[in-house]
Amino acid sequence: MESPAQFTVDEVSPSYWQVTFGNGPVNLLDADSIEQLADLVTRIEESPGLTVVVFGSANPDYFMAHWDLKADRARVAAMAPGPTGLHPYLDNLVRLSKVPAVTISAIRGRARGAGSEFVLATDIRFAGDRAILGHPEVGLGSVPGGGPMARLARLAGRGRAAEILLGADDIPAELAERYGYVNRVLPDGGLAGFVDSFARRIAGFDKTAVAGTKALLDWASLPPDEEFGPGLAAFFRTSGRPENAARVRYLFEHGLQTPAGAELNLGRAVGDLASSLGVARPSPGRSRFGPANGSTPG
Amino acid sequence: MESPAQFTVDEVSPSYWQVTFGNGPVNLLDADSIEQLADLVTRIEESPGLTVVVFGSANPDYFMAHWDLKADRARVAAMAPGPTGLHPYLDNLVRLSKVPAVTISAIRGRARGAGSEFVLATDIRFAGDRAILGHPEVGLGSVPGGGPMARLARLAGRGRAAEILLGADDIPAELAERYGYVNRVLPDGGLAGFVDSFARRIAGFDKTAVAGTKALLDWASLPPDEEFGPGLAAFFRTSGRPENAARVRYLFEHGLQTPAGAELNLGRAVGDLASSLGVARPSPGRSRFGPANGSTPG
Amino acid sequence: MESPAQFTVDEVSPSYWQVTFGNGPVNLLDADSIEQLADLVTRIEESPGLTVVVFGSANPDYFMAHWDLKADRARVAAMAPGPTGLHPYLDNLVRLSKVPAVTISAIRGRARGAGSEFVLATDIRFAGDRAILGHPEVGLGSVPGGGPMARLARLAGRGRAAEILLGADDIPAELAERYGYVNRVLPDGGLAGFVDSFARRIAGFDKTAVAGTKALLDWASLPPDEEFGPGLAAFFRTSGRPENAARVRYLFEHGLQTPAGAELNLGRAVGDLASSLGVARPSPGRSRFGPANGSTPG
Repeated sequence: MESPAQFTVDEVSPSYWQVTFGNGPVNLLDADSIEQLADLVTRIEESPGLTVVVFGSANPDYFMAHWDLKADRARVAAMAPGPTGLHPYLDNLVRLSKVPAVTISAIRGRARGAGSEFVLATDIRFAGDRAILGHPEVGLGSVPGGGPMARLARLAGRGRAAEILLGADDIPAELAERYGYVNRVLPDGGLAGFVDSFARRIAGFDKTAVAGTKALLDWASLPPDEEFGPGLAAFFRTSGRPENAARVRYLFEHGLQTPAGAELNLGRAVGDLASSLGVARPSPGRSRFGPANGSTPG
Repeated sequence: MESPAQFTVDEVSPSYWQVTFGNGPVNLLDADSIEQLADLVTRIEESPGLTVVVFGSANPDYFMAHWDLKADRARVAAMAPGPTGLHPYLDNLVRLSKVPAVTISAIRGRARGAGSEFVLATDIRFAGDRAILGHPEVGLGSVPGGGPMARLARLAGRGRAAEILLGADDIPAELAERYGYVNRVLPDGGLAGFVDSFARRIAGFDKTAVAGTKALLDWASLPPDEEFGPGLAAFFRTSGRPENAARVRYLFEHGLQTPAGAELNLGRAVGDLASSLGVARPSPGRSRFGPANGSTPG
Repeated sequence: MESPAQFTVDEVSPSYWQVTFGNGPVNLLDADSIEQLADLVTRIEESPGLTVVVFGSANPDYFMAHWDLKADRARVAAMAPGPTGLHPYLDNLVRLSKVPAVTISAIRGRARGAGSEFVLATDIRFAGDRAILGHPEVGLGSVPGGGPMARLARLAGRGRAAEILLGADDIPAELAERYGYVNRVLPDGGLAGFVDSFARRIAGFDKTAVAGTKALLDWASLPPDEEFGPGLAAFFRTSGRPENAARVRYLFEHGLQTPAGAELNLGRAVGDLASSLGVARPSPGRSRFGPANGSTPG
C-alpha cells in the first residue's frame, strides 16, 4: 500500500501550480516526504509550460515543523543517490532550487530545521507575520544537514547566519525579514492573496524569459553542489549520538512533535533544556561589560 | 554630424565631477549612449586626480528609463568589442565598476532595465524617496542583458534578486533600500545636497588611498567578468522574438517611452499585460492557503 | 618586564569565557595587542570544552578606538608570520574567525579601523545603541589593512561597503544594523544582559554540534585567506607616506587618541580635515541635480 500523499498539487493553470504540504498534526518531514518530493521535483522539471509554483500548508501554525525525529534512520541512510549523485534528501533540495520555474514559499506558521531547509531551497520566501523560522538542530546536538550554512550565509550574511544557526533560537517573521531570511512579511491574513497575485503575474510571463533569467540567477547565486554533501554527512554523524539522547528525551517530554507544548516555542524550549542540563547556569548580575538586565531588543 | 551629447560632464574640481544624463523626454539608453559612455569611462580612467564622480539626471521623473526598444538592433549587434573583450554595452559597465575613482548614482525618478543596470555598475546608489527601480524585461519576454542577475544576487541576496528579476515589478525606493538594491533613501528634495556633501568629502581624500581601497573592494565584491557575457547573449536571443511582439505592442499602445502613461507605472502595466493575454486570470477566492484578499504589504 | 595584559579573560565556565579589552583611555590597538591576541587565540583554539567567547570593553565609550598611530612601525613590520603564514596582525584575525567556538563582540562605544577589523573577525556582532563603527583610514591617506574590504562586502554588500570604506565616515549603530555591519542593536543598558543570555544558551549546547556547524559556516562564508595579505601590504605601503603627515598632524592637534575631541566624532573630523586642506570646498548651491539643502536621511 502506498503512503498517503503529503504534497497535493493543484494545477491552477498549465503555468501555475499550488502545492500544499500536509503530514500529521505539525507537518513533519520524513522518509516518505523525501520520496514524494523527488517525484514532485521531477514532475516540475518536466512540465514545459510551468512558470511558477507556490508551496504552502493548510495548517496555519505549521508550514513544515522539522524532520521527524522518530523517522526510520536505516531506511533514510539506505536511500540511493538522486540524479545529482547526492543523497535524495539533498538531491531534492538542490534540484528544486534549479527547476526552470519560479518557486515560492508562502510561509504561515513554523518552518524550522528541515522545514527551513525546504523554504531556503525555493527561490522566494514570503512569510505571514505570525511565521517562525529557525534552526534548533545545534541545540539538540546535531549539525543541520540540508545546507543552511551554505544558503543562509549567502542570504543573511555570515554574522546573522551564525546567530541563527549557532544560537538555535526561534526567528520570528519580522526579524527574519530584517535578516534577509525571508523576502517580505505580510499580514498573516493577506499572505495567500499577495502570493497568489504575485504568482499569477509570473504565470502570465513567457516561459523562455523566466527560465533563461532564472538559470543565470542560479549560476550567480546558488552554492556549488559540492558544498552540501559534507553538511549531510555531519548531520548523520552527529544526530544519532548517545550524547544527544537526554536532550531529545527532554523535548519529547515537553511536547515535541505535538501541536502544543515545546513545538510552539521550540527556541525557548531548547534554551531551557541547555539550562536544565546544568551547564553555565545564568547568573545575570555577573557580566563585566555593564548592567545585565536581560532585556531583549525591540 | 555627431549625435548630441547625452552625458554632460561638469568638472567641479579636478577630483570631483558631476555627470548629467539626458536623452529625450524619458532618458532612454540607445546605441549613441553606448558609444558616448565608452568615451566617458575612458576619460574617467585616464584622469589622474579624479577621486569621485556623481551621476544624475536633470529630469526629476526619469533617471534613465530603460533601453530604447526602437534602437537600431543591427547597429548595436555589429559593435566591436571593448577593451575587456566584451560587447561595448557590457564593456562599459564592467569598466565603469572598476575605475580608480568612486562612482555614485544620485537616483531621482525611474531607473529600470538598462537604467538599473547602469546604477548597479556604479559603486554607490543613493535614491530620492520618489525613485523607482526595477527590471521589467522578463515581463516583455526578454532576459535582462546587462548583468543584474550577477549584481543583484550579490547585493540583495538570491531571494530578493529573484523577486525583483522574475516578478518584473516596480521596486519603490523604500523597498529598494530594505532589499539593499540602493544604499539609502533620502527625501527627494535633499538628495542632491546629501550626495554633493558626500562626494566633496571623498574629493578631499588622497587619490592613492581611494583607488587602492577601491581596487581591493573590487577584487572582493565584483562578479567575475565571465559572468556577464552569457546574460547579454540571452538578451539578444530572447528580446527580438516574434513571441514578444504582442507584449511590446501593448505597452507602446499604453504610452511606453513617453513621459506619461505606462512608463510611469511600468510594473503595473506589465502585470495588466500578462492578464490581458488571458493567461492565468486571477480568481482570488481560489487559494488553498487561507483567505485571499490580495492586500499588499505596508 | 612584560607589558600589562590588554585582554582579561574571565572563565565564567569551561564552556563560556568573557574577554575584556583595555588599553589606555581610548582602547587603542598596538604591537602588544598583536602579541597578546595571538596568545589568546591559541588558548581559545586549544580549549576543548569552550563553546562561546564574548568580547567586550570596560570603557563604555571605546570598545577599541583604532590602531595606535604612534605605535612602533619597525617592531610591527619585523614580526614573524603566524601559523597561517600571514603577518601576525592578520594571522590573529584569520585564526580568530575560525576558532571552534562561537565568538561574539558586545560593542559599546566606538570600534573604528582596527577595532572594526577585530569585530568583523568575530562571528557575531551585537551593538549598543550608542555604538559607532567605521573605517576612517582612507580619510587619513591609508588603505585599511585588516581585511574590511573582504569582510564588509560579504556582510553589507558591495555598495554599502563602498560607502563605509570610501566615505570614511562614522557609522552609528542603527545604520550599522540596517547595513548588516552588526547583527542587531540593543539599548545600551541592555546589551550586556542580552549578550550574556545569548552566550549562556550556546554554552549549554554540545561542543561537537557547535564546532561542526561553525566549521561548515566558515567554509561557506569566510573570505579565502589569500584575500587578506594584499590589504595589509597596501596599508604598510600607504600609511606612512609623507603625503599623509598633514592629515595625521591635523587630527592629533584636534584630540586624536584622547577620550574627548576628534576621537568622539572622528568621521566629522576627517571631513573637516578634507575641507581644511582646501580641496573641493563645498558650494552647496551648485549641484545640477536639484535643490542642495544638505539634509541627512532620517
